[in-house]
Amino acid sequence: MVLKSFVEVQPDSHFPIQNLPYGVFRPAPGSEPRPGVAIGEYVLDLSVVASAGLFDGPVLKNSDCFNQVNLNKFVGLGRPAWKEARVTLQKLLSATEPTLRDNPSLRQKALVPVVQVQMLLPVVIGDYTDFFASMHHAKNCGLIFRGPENPINPNWFHIPIAYHGRASSIVISGTDIIRPRGQGHPPGNSPPYFGPSRKLDFEMEMAAVVGPGNELGKPVDVNEAADHIFGLVLMNDWSARDIQAWEYVPLGPFLGKSFGTTISPWIVTLDALEPFASDAPKKNPPPLPYLAEKISKNYDISLQVLGSSKYIYWTITQQLAHHTINGCNLRPGDLLGTGTISGPEPESYGCLLELTWNGQKPLSLGGSTRKFLEDGDEVIFTGCCKGDGYLVGFGTCSGKILPSPS
Amino acid sequence: MVLKSFVEVQPDSHFPIQNLPYGVFRPAPGSEPRPGVAIGEYVLDLSVVASAGLFDGPVLKNSDCFNQVNLNKFVGLGRPAWKEARVTLQKLLSATEPTLRDNPSLRQKALVPVVQVQMLLPVVIGDYTDFFASMHHAKNCGLIFRGPENPINPNWFHIPIAYHGRASSIVISGTDIIRPRGQGHPPGNSPPYFGPSRKLDFEMEMAAVVGPGNELGKPVDVNEAADHIFGLVLMNDWSARDIQAWEYVPLGPFLGKSFGTTISPWIVTLDALEPFASDAPKKNPPPLPYLAEKISKNYDISLQVLGSSKYIYWTITQQLAHHTINGCNLRPGDLLGTGTISGPEPESYGCLLELTWNGQKPLSLGGSTRKFLEDGDEVIFTGCCKGDGYLVGFGTCSGKILPSPS
Repeated sequence: MVLKSFVEVQPDSHFPIQNLPYGVFRPAPGSEPRPGVAIGEYVLDLSVVASAGLFDGPVLKNSDCFNQVNLNKFVGLGRPAWKEARVTLQKLLSATEPTLRDNPSLRQKALVPVVQVQMLLPVVIGDYTDFFASMHHAKNCGLIFRGPENPINPNWFHIPIAYHGRASSIVISGTDIIRPRGQGHPPGNSPPYFGPSRKLDFEMEMAAVVGPGNELGKPVDVNEAADHIFGLVLMNDWSARDIQAWEYVPLGPFLGKSFGTTISPWIVTLDALEPFASDAPKKNPPPLPYLAEKISKNYDISLQVLGSSKYIYWTITQQLAHHTINGCNLRPGDLLGTGTISGPEPESYGCLLELTWNGQKPLSLGGSTRKFLEDGDEVIFTGCCKGDGYLVGFGTCSGKILPSPS
Repeated sequence: MVLKSFVEVQPDSHFPIQNLPYGVFRPAPGSEPRPGVAIGEYVLDLSVVASAGLFDGPVLKNSDCFNQVNLNKFVGLGRPAWKEARVTLQKLLSATEPTLRDNPSLRQKALVPVVQVQMLLPVVIGDYTDFFASMHHAKNCGLIFRGPENPINPNWFHIPIAYHGRASSIVISGTDIIRPRGQGHPPGNSPPYFGPSRKLDFEMEMAAVVGPGNELGKPVDVNEAADHIFGLVLMNDWSARDIQAWEYVPLGPFLGKSFGTTISPWIVTLDALEPFASDAPKKNPPPLPYLAEKISKNYDISLQVLGSSKYIYWTITQQLAHHTINGCNLRPGDLLGTGTISGPEPESYGCLLELTWNGQKPLSLGGSTRKFLEDGDEVIFTGCCKGDGYLVGFGTCSGKILPSPS
């Protein structure tokens, strides 16, 4: 018997009562941002639920975590708070529970049609880290840039490789992306050129939102890392391949990435994703003990139209444990991207660099072709898990390319 | 005739009335943080000055920027506010001005002995970027890691190379640094090892504190970049060379740096440093137009005991303009490090990697020798400019190494 809500939820909705992802929204233009969860075509306003005294469990009863303009306080409370909120909300929204269902004035205040709301960044992101955790992506990048001998650098099989990203330029789904200008370098000995990026790309990723975090100098054990991950979002790590190729030696990507990174508005919790856990790829050579987790899992999230997150080699828990092993402190709301998610088949590659093999094999798309993105192009990611009679989905992560400033 | 304060300032003090650097402090344990400026052996409490109505200029008269727990609001106001505050404070503290000098109860409240206060991070740092702007440092790193052929990668002369750093692990001077653990890799084909870093290093840098910043998609013109830099601090970008060497290909430094970065507590403003401006090194080849600034200057800050910031090749204004040319947005309080500052002579090298040539030439230090840092070692940087009869200094930037957790 599948759990049902009294709120009508279409069979193809990403947001049934089994999901309940968290976001931050304005119910009307100019109104104060507040946390909500998605249910069907509605947003449940958690500030209203809290004010009505309906969070009555021991952790959340006296908390003001839902009277905030972002989710940082709630995600910082940790798994006991997350579990309690999920139990409370699944009960409140269930078809058999009268409290909200049979209270028209409270329903009117608490359930806002999603078409009316403006979604905002769900958390203040202090630091954003991007990993490089998909083996197929790592291999394809190596083949394209360094050739067929050792396409994957030897450190990759021992380390969840990552770089610090730019937090300030993370934007919410639907925000336009302005084509960046910068330096590129033609093959050979010519001087660099300057101008709008000629190789603008998307990168399909997932990103983990950090929960409580850790103190500086106190690493997180890999077997406890899941308690530090609140949930996942879809992420488009827009990339200017020409800028990136010219700048990245020896300190890594910088301006080729920092002009914009788009995330989807709804954070899908690990609790909602748990039924879709699958074994992570076997690692050979075996990882060092600090990365050897007792249960090593991914989530089988189908990413439209490209691939599946089950192809991630280093799990999000290994990423988080590695991130802290040197003592680096994570803070509530920090974002950890997986890196581009590519599968083994060409149609499951997660960026144009791979899909068009650096522009050598243009991609046919409904009558037109693309090597890289053109002004006006809109990129829309979506992803969901298929349950028995319901979906647990992420909604969409979209952005449209505007021309460079002249 | 040198401007003097009624507050006694020793001739070797870094903090005469010509300096007036900004910081954030607690006057007593447990009290609320507030902004202050250093004058001799005292901190002038700006929340007290503001409450007394002594900021009476047009920009600051009705502002609450000094009734904040950090300087972000003040630095975000921009140069008109900074100029006005400097004029107000130099007048208020001058030997000939009675307002504060002859008001014992206000003096008692406003001037707190520096030995009593606790200094805190002066700004909330949203994003931290570290450049690689010293040519001698770039060359030495290339010689050590890649050998004598083309030690400096060709892109370096066209791009102020940088990477995103970790904001959460930036700490104030005096905070202990815990030796990080992580993976290293011995020469040859052995597997990587795991444990406390065997090559712990310091890096002597300066860092710029960003002022108003820019909107996403709207680059800052290089000739206006100085209006976006509030001032400078000393910075120690602690580095674990073994972790860094094994992890940094292809995405740059990550855990080799993110375990701790120390900054000095006092932000010395560009206005205070202006008398010490010197021409920046001539650039060959000439930079692309977006980096060609009409006036290209460094500040001649003597860094004890190592070098001078006049050796920075890419100026802080070129760094900032480059940072935004792709549209990346900077926010008030963001930090831009110069990268290790090394001069041409071995004794002016800014880190042990260079000073000991990756441990091959141990350094003699008062009876003992060092290849890299040992547990218990304390590293203290200081820096100042020499004026005619006074110094404009940064105080100290210090940190002591504690052993790794077992």
